[in-house]
Amino acid sequence: MPSTHTDKAFEADLRDLREKLLAMGAKVEAHIADSVRALTERDSTLAERVIQADKEVNRLEVEIDETCRRILALRQPAASDLRLITTALKIVTDLERIGDLAVNIAERAKDLNEAPPLKPYVDTPRLADLAQQQVKKALDAFVSSDVAKAEAVLKEDEHLDVLYLKIFNELLSYMMEDSKNIRRATALMFIAKHLERIGDHATNVAEMVVYMVRGTDIRHPRSRNLTTAP
Amino acid sequence: MPSTHTDKAFEADLRDLREKLLAMGAKVEAHIADSVRALTERDSTLAERVIQADKEVNRLEVEIDETCRRILALRQPAASDLRLITTALKIVTDLERIGDLAVNIAERAKDLNEAPPLKPYVDTPRLADLAQQQVKKALDAFVSSDVAKAEAVLKEDEHLDVLYLKIFNELLSYMMEDSKNIRRATALMFIAKHLERIGDHATNVAEMVVYMVRGTDIRHPRSRNLTTAP
Repeated sequence: MPSTHTDKAFEADLRDLREKLLAMGAKVEAHIADSVRALTERDSTLAERVIQADKEVNRLEVEIDETCRRILALRQPAASDLRLITTALKIVTDLERIGDLAVNIAERAKDLNEAPPLKPYVDTPRLADLAQQQVKKALDAFVSSDVAKAEAVLKEDEHLDVLYLKIFNELLSYMMEDSKNIRRATALMFIAKHLERIGDHATNVAEMVVYMVRGTDIRHPRSRNLTTAP
Repeated sequence: MPSTHTDKAFEADLRDLREKLLAMGAKVEAHIADSVRALTERDSTLAERVIQADKEVNRLEVEIDETCRRILALRQPAASDLRLITTALKIVTDLERIGDLAVNIAERAKDLNEAPPLKPYVDTPRLADLAQQQVKKALDAFVSSDVAKAEAVLKEDEHLDVLYLKIFNELLSYMMEDSKNIRRATALMFIAKHLERIGDHATNVAEMVVYMVRGTDIRHPRSRNLTTAP
């Protein structure tokens, strides 16, 4: 990316910012995987670990916000550098919300682990994998200012929507079959919905990356909701 | 709020920014109310209007982002002014997501209007009212830099969580009672969840206002999820 600020201090600031964002991203990616593993392996200790570890994600959010503000105040960046920093300020919020969603999944997993499993979990871990990859790719696209990678994330989101819809409909049929399934199926529905929303956060990040690099806003021509399920 | 920038151009910029944010806020507040009215009055034309009007919300998001970046580039604000602009950049994202949630509710309303109503809707419009008021108060707290108002929003969030839980449990019992209720009750559950999330967005805004004014981050000591429902 061409930069109007070539001094070393500014480059060091940007490197620091990118590293912190990647560190925060790595944490929330691990929390997505662990929260769903807590469900599939019925491991409530792991669920509790995800819930506790969210503090660190929150701490990183505050720290990255401060870093962005410090860079704005000291370096007064312009043009593409300014877009980079303002985009980072927004991305950090998406990462923090992804962390909250992983906590929410972990809480549901703890409840579900108290009862016998409704069914073998196959599609939910697949959806978690996809969501986690989307977060990783979107963040990689940001730190490398890579539009092609960001556009791949936007394209891939459809697969998450389709898989979510499949899970939703399957759980609905379990509920119809036997009212004893309703409570557990509802909890699983919300877990799937949380994973689909994590995918939406990745999409938001990817859209912001395209804007940051191109200077053209593509955030809104496409709809975020392709599914017909709630 | 004490300002290090006293020149008139800067004040005019800030006034412009506040006005745009309030205009965007007024729009999303109306969309929350209309999306739920589309459900309670079985008015799918109104639902469609909410869906179409979201374009304007999205346009305002892009415009406000640009305004913030222009102020940062031209005025190079420091200290509390810098916090004001960086907070506005984050708040606008919350407002846009609230708009998306209203669209999602409107889409569910359209589907639900195709079938006979499950039950008279009493608590859902109440939850919508509370959520809408929370958004309004949080945004007022921002434009007037009013910490007391922001703290009132944080305190009030508990009432939304309690009401959401009540709706959730009632819908669960409808589902248990008769499997013919399941599909509609699930859709209503997601509508209630969306309203509760709108309340969470208002809470996010309020937390940012406290930080903006006090310079102390209170975003993370309290948990966002007090409910035990998914």
